[in-house]
Amino acid sequence: MSNKPNLHTVISPRLLDLYDLSDSIVVVIDVFRATSTIATALFNGASRVIPVDSVDQCIRIGNDTGGITAGERDGKVIEGLSYGNSPAEYPRSFIDGKTLVLTTTNGTKLLHKALQSGAAEVVTGSFPNLSAVCEYLIAQNKPVILGCSAWKDKFNIEDTLFAGAVIQRVKEHFTIHCDSSLMAEELYHLHKADMYQFIRQTTHWHRLASYGLEKDLEYCVTENVANVLPIYRNGDLVVEK
Amino acid sequence: MSNKPNLHTVISPRLLDLYDLSDSIVVVIDVFRATSTIATALFNGASRVIPVDSVDQCIRIGNDTGGITAGERDGKVIEGLSYGNSPAEYPRSFIDGKTLVLTTTNGTKLLHKALQSGAAEVVTGSFPNLSAVCEYLIAQNKPVILGCSAWKDKFNIEDTLFAGAVIQRVKEHFTIHCDSSLMAEELYHLHKADMYQFIRQTTHWHRLASYGLEKDLEYCVTENVANVLPIYRNGDLVVEK
Repeated sequence: MSNKPNLHTVISPRLLDLYDLSDSIVVVIDVFRATSTIATALFNGASRVIPVDSVDQCIRIGNDTGGITAGERDGKVIEGLSYGNSPAEYPRSFIDGKTLVLTTTNGTKLLHKALQSGAAEVVTGSFPNLSAVCEYLIAQNKPVILGCSAWKDKFNIEDTLFAGAVIQRVKEHFTIHCDSSLMAEELYHLHKADMYQFIRQTTHWHRLASYGLEKDLEYCVTENVANVLPIYRNGDLVVEK
Repeated sequence: MSNKPNLHTVISPRLLDLYDLSDSIVVVIDVFRATSTIATALFNGASRVIPVDSVDQCIRIGNDTGGITAGERDGKVIEGLSYGNSPAEYPRSFIDGKTLVLTTTNGTKLLHKALQSGAAEVVTGSFPNLSAVCEYLIAQNKPVILGCSAWKDKFNIEDTLFAGAVIQRVKEHFTIHCDSSLMAEELYHLHKADMYQFIRQTTHWHRLASYGLEKDLEYCVTENVANVLPIYRNGDLVVEK
């Protein structure tokens, strides 16, 4: 039998507790747009990204750290915060050397659940940092949970496509007996060549495109344009050197 | 805008409460093997199938009704019950006119959750009764939830494939903005021509095939060989005339 570590895909935060997370690396995936924005800000030199789950906490930590506060609801910057959730807002000329305090709903929720459930490490994954995630997972040789943030606990296509992209690249290094992983890989394989078209069919596209975010969403399914590994250390997401 | 009723696919019982079930028809799907067996027994003349969630209840109701008690764990008939979960055990020569009291884990759990959540109707679906399910859904013109029983709340491929088979046949009659449904239809479309091969990759296949149930599993993905509509009425699944 194989001694390769197990890899599972979890398609909703609601299902996370069905899996044994001890000694595992959890990859938090929130393709539209939290984890894409996190990778981009860190790639462009942000010293750290602090993920928080409420607006009040975002403002408070922003004050304490002198960080940039950011968050959106319904495509608009939240009142009291300074910037939005778009990766395009964080070029190097703006974010280099700064702290970003980011409030998101789905991604942050999953990240905190993973920590509470005893994950050994939490990293964030998105198409812009696909290769960095894959290289890290292969090098660590530990059990892996690909955790899809989903949309208010409902399955979404885009996070699953990213899980499939990872699986296709790392599968020889892991033991994978998991229908969610099989489905994710099939879906990615089927659509990797027409990703820009396929994401136009997702519910999230229809939700965000109505706010004029088409370019953002296309960026968020572009591979390796912000290739760093964000890893969670004592409340901060920082670049793993 | 469209006045067509909504259709959603729910890929785990754990996610059912995220959806509004009022006035909806819930299709309970447990392809390997509960809903395939239910369709087969009713197609072959069973007067009713009583789905129960415990062995004790199965024995008690079997005694009260004079029904045949059935249930398996790990591929073996449960001690105290008479028959198993295989559709092959219920030919017309045996089951015609009889009551079947069936204990299952995943399917029965979802069925009871759906009833508690206020579903207007509960029917059961499987490849052997695919057309009957589709015709009923189109005729009723009500909101539909395609409910996958999953495996201990974890996503499974085979129930999702059935949801995709239904969607492909009924989609013109419904409003579908649901990533789970999109994924299910894609997966079915991709594998409908190689179903017998594809199911060999599922975790459930590996679980059940080790008990020598390959023929059973192939039967369970064969379309329209037991084409009746099991509908839940006061504790019994009966054929909708």
